[in-house]
Amino acid sequence: MATQGQVITCKAAVAYEPNKPLVIEDVQVAPPQAGEVRIKILFTALCHTDAYTWSGKDPEGLFPCILGHEAAGIVESVGEGVTEVQPGDHVIPCYQAECRECKFCKSGKTNLCGKVRTATGAGVMMNDRKSRFSVNGKPIYHFMGTSTFSQYTVVHDVSVAKVDPQAPLDKVCLLGCGVPTGLGAVWNTAKVEPGATVAIFGLGTVGLAVAEGAKSAGASRIIGVDIDSKKYDIAKNFGVTEFVNPKDYDKPIQQVLVDLTDGGVDYSFECIGNVSVMRAALECCHKGWGTSVIIGVAASGQEISTRPFQLVTGRVWKGTAFGGFKSRSQVPWLVDKYMKKEIKIDEYITHNLALGDINKAFDLMHEGGCLRCVLKLHE
Amino acid sequence: MATQGQVITCKAAVAYEPNKPLVIEDVQVAPPQAGEVRIKILFTALCHTDAYTWSGKDPEGLFPCILGHEAAGIVESVGEGVTEVQPGDHVIPCYQAECRECKFCKSGKTNLCGKVRTATGAGVMMNDRKSRFSVNGKPIYHFMGTSTFSQYTVVHDVSVAKVDPQAPLDKVCLLGCGVPTGLGAVWNTAKVEPGATVAIFGLGTVGLAVAEGAKSAGASRIIGVDIDSKKYDIAKNFGVTEFVNPKDYDKPIQQVLVDLTDGGVDYSFECIGNVSVMRAALECCHKGWGTSVIIGVAASGQEISTRPFQLVTGRVWKGTAFGGFKSRSQVPWLVDKYMKKEIKIDEYITHNLALGDINKAFDLMHEGGCLRCVLKLHE
Repeated sequence: MATQGQVITCKAAVAYEPNKPLVIEDVQVAPPQAGEVRIKILFTALCHTDAYTWSGKDPEGLFPCILGHEAAGIVESVGEGVTEVQPGDHVIPCYQAECRECKFCKSGKTNLCGKVRTATGAGVMMNDRKSRFSVNGKPIYHFMGTSTFSQYTVVHDVSVAKVDPQAPLDKVCLLGCGVPTGLGAVWNTAKVEPGATVAIFGLGTVGLAVAEGAKSAGASRIIGVDIDSKKYDIAKNFGVTEFVNPKDYDKPIQQVLVDLTDGGVDYSFECIGNVSVMRAALECCHKGWGTSVIIGVAASGQEISTRPFQLVTGRVWKGTAFGGFKSRSQVPWLVDKYMKKEIKIDEYITHNLALGDINKAFDLMHEGGCLRCVLKLHE
Repeated sequence: MATQGQVITCKAAVAYEPNKPLVIEDVQVAPPQAGEVRIKILFTALCHTDAYTWSGKDPEGLFPCILGHEAAGIVESVGEGVTEVQPGDHVIPCYQAECRECKFCKSGKTNLCGKVRTATGAGVMMNDRKSRFSVNGKPIYHFMGTSTFSQYTVVHDVSVAKVDPQAPLDKVCLLGCGVPTGLGAVWNTAKVEPGATVAIFGLGTVGLAVAEGAKSAGASRIIGVDIDSKKYDIAKNFGVTEFVNPKDYDKPIQQVLVDLTDGGVDYSFECIGNVSVMRAALECCHKGWGTSVIIGVAASGQEISTRPFQLVTGRVWKGTAFGGFKSRSQVPWLVDKYMKKEIKIDEYITHNLALGDINKAFDLMHEGGCLRCVLKLHE
């Protein structure tokens, strides 16, 4: 390709400061170094983690940066030693890497990977601890090792999932974060079994994906919990069988659910990031075996708490990141499931905009009717 | 038997008030009603839960009562409908019942049993919601459905494990609580696998049983944590391979353990009942898969807390009661394991006294050198 080995100048949305509108800039994207892949991002969605860091509440947030981590694109060029993808491959960048060599990857017990985490956490690439993005020579930090709010991005090769070239990238971009997180929380982390009762706190994209996962796992009751009753109608399409609005009750929501389910649910999922809700989600679980999975990301410094008796009497408190999916190995499998119509994606996409409308897209996220807004990055 | 159907007057240690010395009294023990079993208790040990309720800190503690829940004896008589044991059977009373009929027992997911819990929690028998103990006509509450600090006691039939009549009751009485709790926490709750690293907080009887269980499960490193360094010598005999005294470090103990184990242990066990230690036990676990099991009973009203990030990054927080063992089904199996010398019991018994010395026995519990003190109830 003509651009290989060259700096590419393209459009990207730069977050210069917390809470200030993103600025569409001409950014310079350096060529990939050893073990790196430069991707032409075609579509990116927005996720609450982007908004969280943008808000300034994320103590690890670095500015200026290019946010974005739920996207799909085509490999433009690869650095030295990259063997598993080549230019032209259709790919999904993965904020959760999978090197297959580190202690974590080899443990067989987790999808977390330790290889590039210190670099991605610091907003740089591992090779030289520097950014590949700049504006007029000034470096712009990477974000989550993905930075997909840019027409081109550079990622580590251990963070790239190669997918079926037939898959529509404007849809499967959602498999970069929210949908797998919800499905995997049910399938991998909780391992919900047929006949189980499930409570889902928060009916955004992740919560709906939990419902879909629970339905496909054969759950007998899938109780959606949200303070916005309008969400029930949409949620039914994803498998939610009952709806509870905590605002309709004087008693604590955990007690409402315990009463509703003869002692508590078998599995609960917190999809909001609120530590009080995390406690309620644990405490609405059935004595003896109820398992609660934390999916939402709480604000920095906040803590969860409960009486230890809750655990001594058999409840289990867990969490999940990217639904426990091994990214490079399993994102392609999820794409295949979508192609076979075994999982939904289209139904989560409520809005489509262009990169230039990204600030409007963030505004939409705070409206009840928005699940995922997909941005098109090239005309 | 001559006593069958009769009230038996015998010696028991009565706790009239919190924190006041127990009084050896002549108590009247009524005959067993339907579904009940009267047991001649031959030997009982003391456990910290007895001391906890006696202290008055247990909000569910009822006075006057007869404490004690780690014992062995011989069935004296049975009430109507009792089929699984008969007079003369050697038995271990079990504070955790197993009815095999309730939702819990049938779930296949827990050893908790719901059948008699509301009665035992209220210090009475289920049949008529009354006590079988009295002193001069005044009722004395039962405790944990067992009340083994009495020469005779009455328990529900679902709370009696029939054991090998060859087993020495002065030893296997320990299988009523502490030893199974520790072993089961490892085998049933954590499911420690060969090669795993383990940290044990608190090296009393339960902690040592955890060590023994971890050793038999093939753990590669078993790190004992205690503020009394003298305990290491004993602990080595139970499988502890390394010892850490938190007092020897300025940094938090969780950090000490993380540094010592290249990122944290695979499994940790809290055997004290201290909520700060419970947090440390969770946070010393390895990211991605570390599992912490709460065994200790915390004081009423106390809460555990941590950052949710600890769970989102893969740690699991659990608890256990009676080590997850199904009491009636598995206590006999544990007795058999002892008879085959596959598990220790004798080594936990540091003192032997008579019932009349029970207050001295409670004093001994607070001394570092005491693990289990076994009381002989009949001359």
